[in-house]
Formats: sequence, C-alpha cells, structure tokens
Amino acid sequence: MRQVSIIGIGQTRVNEHWEKSIRDLGVEAVLAALRDAGTDSVDALYLGNMLSGELSGQEHTAALIADHAGLGGVEALKVEAACAAGAAALRVGYMAVASGVIDLAVVCGVEKMTDRLSEEVTAALAFAADAEYEVAQGISFVSLNALLMRRYMHEYGVERSAFANFAVNAHRNAMNNPYAMFHMPITEEAFNKSRMIAEPVGLLDSAPICDGAAAVVLCPRSEAREFNERPVHILASAVATDRLAVHDRSDPLFLRAAYESAQKAYEQARVGPGDIDLFELHDAFTIMSALSLEAAGFAARGQGVRLAQEGEIALQGGIPICTMGGLKGRGHPVGATGIYQIVEVVQQLRGEAGENQVDCRLGMAQNIGGSGATVITHILEALS
Amino acid sequence: MRQVSIIGIGQTRVNEHWEKSIRDLGVEAVLAALRDAGTDSVDALYLGNMLSGELSGQEHTAALIADHAGLGGVEALKVEAACAAGAAALRVGYMAVASGVIDLAVVCGVEKMTDRLSEEVTAALAFAADAEYEVAQGISFVSLNALLMRRYMHEYGVERSAFANFAVNAHRNAMNNPYAMFHMPITEEAFNKSRMIAEPVGLLDSAPICDGAAAVVLCPRSEAREFNERPVHILASAVATDRLAVHDRSDPLFLRAAYESAQKAYEQARVGPGDIDLFELHDAFTIMSALSLEAAGFAARGQGVRLAQEGEIALQGGIPICTMGGLKGRGHPVGATGIYQIVEVVQQLRGEAGENQVDCRLGMAQNIGGSGATVITHILEALS
Repeated sequence: MRQVSIIGIGQTRVNEHWEKSIRDLGVEAVLAALRDAGTDSVDALYLGNMLSGELSGQEHTAALIADHAGLGGVEALKVEAACAAGAAALRVGYMAVASGVIDLAVVCGVEKMTDRLSEEVTAALAFAADAEYEVAQGISFVSLNALLMRRYMHEYGVERSAFANFAVNAHRNAMNNPYAMFHMPITEEAFNKSRMIAEPVGLLDSAPICDGAAAVVLCPRSEAREFNERPVHILASAVATDRLAVHDRSDPLFLRAAYESAQKAYEQARVGPGDIDLFELHDAFTIMSALSLEAAGFAARGQGVRLAQEGEIALQGGIPICTMGGLKGRGHPVGATGIYQIVEVVQQLRGEAGENQVDCRLGMAQNIGGSGATVITHILEALS
Repeated sequence: MRQVSIIGIGQTRVNEHWEKSIRDLGVEAVLAALRDAGTDSVDALYLGNMLSGELSGQEHTAALIADHAGLGGVEALKVEAACAAGAAALRVGYMAVASGVIDLAVVCGVEKMTDRLSEEVTAALAFAADAEYEVAQGISFVSLNALLMRRYMHEYGVERSAFANFAVNAHRNAMNNPYAMFHMPITEEAFNKSRMIAEPVGLLDSAPICDGAAAVVLCPRSEAREFNERPVHILASAVATDRLAVHDRSDPLFLRAAYESAQKAYEQARVGPGDIDLFELHDAFTIMSALSLEAAGFAARGQGVRLAQEGEIALQGGIPICTMGGLKGRGHPVGATGIYQIVEVVQQLRGEAGENQVDCRLGMAQNIGGSGATVITHILEALS
C-alpha cells in the first residue's frame, strides 16, 4: 500500500454566493488546488457533496465539475455520507492513490445551499436522519441537536452558558481567515442572549446555511516533493458508523463512531490524543464540539465543555480547535466542510495560517455525518 | 496492489415493491450476498444509489443500510454517478480492497423509484443531465435519447425497426431470470407498433421505472477460495467521463467515455473485444445498446444495429448481451443496475445462469451514467 500526501489546496470563500452555481464553486476550488500543486491535469476527481440533487436539481455532479474544470474525461465520482461527504470523498481519494490505481487525484467538497428557501434547506438537511423513524415524527437536525444538548445539560448539570466559548472561539479565529463567512467577533454575553432556534440551541450555537467549495490534490508520498516543497502526509484515514437514529443508541451522549474512528486513526498513526497539536472538529452545533472532544479522547465524559470554559481550545491552549473559524465561524457548506477542515490543517502544517498559526506537527480533522452516525477522522503530518 | 475477487452475490427481484422501502431492499440484497459468501461481517459497505434523497427523502443511505443489516459500525459510504452509481460503488470497493485498507467489503446498488408519481421520477432522472443548460430547456432523459436515436437513424439510414431485436432479445432472456421484472416475451411486431414516448423512442425501447437492490462481496484474490469454491476475479475496472451535456460533444453518436473506459479495461485485462464471451451493456434505451456495442469495439460505427438484426446478440450469438434480461427485461432501478450487471456476469461465470447459460470465461459489464457522460467498465474472469 502506497502512502499518500497532499500537494495542493484550494478554496472559495464560504458565503452566500448568489451569483455562483454549484458548478462554478466546484470548478473554482478545483482549479485553485491544481494551481497550488503546480499541475493542470489529474487522473481522477472525487467529489464530496450531500444535496446537489435536492437543492440544485443536479446529480452526476462529479462528472459535471470535472467537465467544466477542463479535466478531459477523467474518472469522476461523487461520494455522500451526509455532512461527512467531504471527508468521505477524501477517504475514497486516499484509497485510490494508496492502491496504485490512481496516481494524481483531486478531491473536492462542494455545497450550494442558498438558492432555496431556508425551510427547504432545513428539510433537505434532515435527510441525514432516519426518514421513516425520525423525520416522519417531525424531527429536524436542529431539534435532534437540541435534544442532545438538553440531555447533556441535565446529565452533567451544566448551564447553556458553559458552551459559549465554543462559539466565541470560532468567531474569533474566523476573523483572520479571509475564506471565512463571518468576520464578526461575538461575546459570551451575545451568546447567552442569542435567539433560540430549538431550545436550548440558539442562533449562536449553530453553523450557518451557506455555499462553498474546497479541494486538495493527492499523490503518492514518494512523488510529493516533485510537486511541492511542503507536502503534508496523510498518516491516518478512518471511517466508523453508528446506529443512524439517535433513539437506537443505548447512550446518545456517547458518539461511538467518533470514538471508533478516532481510535482507528490513532492506531494507524501510532499516536494518541496527547500528540495532536490541533483538532479541526465538527462544530455544527456547540453540543457537537463537546461530544467530539470527549469521544476523541481529549476530555472525560461530561468534561468537554470545560476545555472551552478554561480556554484550552484557543490557539494558545492545550488543544486548539476550529483554528480558522470552524463550522460556526468559517461556515458549514455541508458536503464541503470535510475538505475545508483538511485544507485548514494543511495551512497550519505548512505554517501558512497567518495570525492564527499554531505550533504544530500533527493535525487531526474529524467530519461528522448526521447526528454522529458517520464519523471520519484524518491525521495529517508535516513532512520535514 | 492486491487483486480482487467476488465471493458472494445477492439480489432482490426487480419490481414495483410497494411494500418495501429503500432500507428494506438494500438490507435484503446485502444479507443475501453475505450468505452467499458465507460470512456475517465485513469491513465496509459501499452503496451505489442515485435518487434516495429526491425520491425517499433519505440521504446518508449507506450508513442506514449498514445499520439495519446489522453490520455494527462498519465504514459505509454512498457513491453516485447518475445511472452508473452501481458500478461506481464497485469501483470504490475494488480500490478499497486493492489498496489493502479493507479486507472484506460488500458493495450494494439500490434504487426505490415507485413511491413517487412517474412525472416526479422523470424529473429526478433528468438530474443526470446538465441542470442549467439541458434540463432548463425542457430536456428529459427520454427526449435526449430520442434526439440521439433520430440522429442515428438519419446518419446511418436505418429504420426504427432495426432496433427491435434489442428489446425482443432482452425480454426473451428475462423469461428465465426469476429476479427479472418482466416475464413477458415481446415480438418485433409489438416493438414496431409500440406507443411512442418521445418519437422515435417508444415504450418498448425503454427500460422501466422500478425498484430493486443487488450486492456483491469482495475480498483479496489470495483469500477468495477460503470463502467460495467458485470465486470470480475482477480483471479490469475502469472509469471514463465525457462532456456532460450532449450539445458539448463534437460527435454525439460516439460514446467517447464508453470507448475510453472499454479501452482502459481491455488494457488492464490484456484482452480485446474478441476475447469477451458476454457483454452486459446498458440498454436503458435501444439506441444505447447500438452505441455501446460500437464504442466498446464490437461493431463499426453505424453497425451496432446489425448485431441485433443478425442475432449476434443472442445467447448463442457472437457477442451475447443482456443475458439475464438487461435493463429492458430485468429492469433498471438506476443506482442498482450496475451491480445487477455484475451479479449476472458472476452467475454466468459460475455456470449458474440456468437455461440462459453461455459458454464463457470472460464477461464484461458496462454501466452508463447520463447520456454517456460517465461510463464504467468491468471485466470479470472465472477463476479456474
């Protein structure tokens, strides 16, 4: 099995891109990544996307973007795993290059959400849950997270304000990321007063509906230096799943798939949580940040919020998270998010994170589909 | 790179399954394939599906089916490439096992189409075409194929009746396939008189809207005999794409991606068209059969219909196609079709095709997405 490196990154700004279609966004990110890698051709394009059919009336989106990026007939496949579609596409690209079948691959994540009414988008996002046994009861993604957050507050005796710093930290870090949607710091007070969406989930607990695309170029590690002086090596790539419906899980506050995929990744990389210098986690809602930190081994059960309260998640803290803004600050174009996370870890490992630079050698990204039913973890290393 | 074998197959009957959801269908096929392979666990599930979101309000479908098949937290990803989604999932499973990352994978194709009105299904199928430049002009999938068929008839001076035997052959072969939707022979006369859908495409040129699921289990070739006395080896796996919109192609009657993916597959397998003993092609419309035979090297340009007219496509002919009924006779649950094709080639290579048995050692399957924008070719060999 060949080892795999990342030799190029590209991204559009996350925003409400009224003037760009899903094709435009995907092509822009793909071409930026190819430029960064110093190549104009690849053997394959793997696309992470969740809702191109539902929101743009477009499936077959990988072939469309390959076509309009001028990639001339290459292999092109779309991969979907709800909000983990981005990392799922990276997983496929990783296996393609590792196998020797593909030498040079571009992996793109893209989502175009703002052409539809927000209630249509909310309905489509719920397709990540169990259509027959959750959604048919009226559950939405926000209300599922509200149930989890309420349960967490009850079990561990914490107030909603304990989650504030997840959002404050994300918005602060997004300030220095030109590709982030929000360049607007928020205060703990604003978080505490924020309008409720589905109590106790407020507006400032929640990542925004938005558009964006990000891409990375992969090649075998042995050839990485031919393309790039600062290649980044994929040390681990791991996928795990859990029961899809939250009511089927014996312990809803334990993200079993996050635990399993993190453990598999640590084993592959032969490291532990203590070796990870930054952690791009899936903060679609603040409750997910707490549960992810616990499942991935950075905090004991019920202690995830402490890392926020005590500032350990800050750039200078023990385990920096959301260093370029996370889903809350950079934005969460769902199928693209997993690749934005990877692009940002690469920026950090290359030393290109500007004012948000963290001292790092190992970075971890964890992309979550649904309410934790699919979790994909990658560990990246700066090649010295 | 490890070589990859197929050690288990499973399928539901293709039909209008009013009483089964997409979850039920997928689980049934997966469990049948695992039983056939003699295993009750795998490391990963890769799911081919096009329209679960649009027609069942369900994305994240791979994790859902893995969950309800009792696969206990395994890696699960959905792969989409329009009507080539089935073969696309096999492609991913193939790379996963070839890479050494995954030892045992189940690849399932599933589609549930009959819970919606046929006009909704027709609209969703058009998502395989270019939403902004084809569909926005009112094009549907049937009308795209009608344009191609009309052009073929004009360029090569053939009548619609020249296509009759594609449909007659498919229905005849489906008679002996218990998993086929149609057990109803048709005559050339019936074909010639069939009701027009989009002239010159008639009802009997067209594969039906239907439900179904099929699955295969993959393992490294070196371990195949531990599971199965008659493993089948994947000699070649190749994907190619073309311009997505038909109007962007300089020669619309040449399926460039079918040509490219067949050529890549022949090179990998070190064989040519003359070595192929049966060819499961993508007869969503009769025109696609003619164009596929030409692009894959079985007939010169404009001569594809001759193979039908002269009976060369029959079970006893020079190049048997649609040996278990093809898309027209077995049915075309779109994201499942690519796996049905593989299951049927395996049945032939194992000598389990009953009255439709062809004398064979090498079988080829070609799955087409859209009007030819994605084409995926696999060549399988009976392990002696």
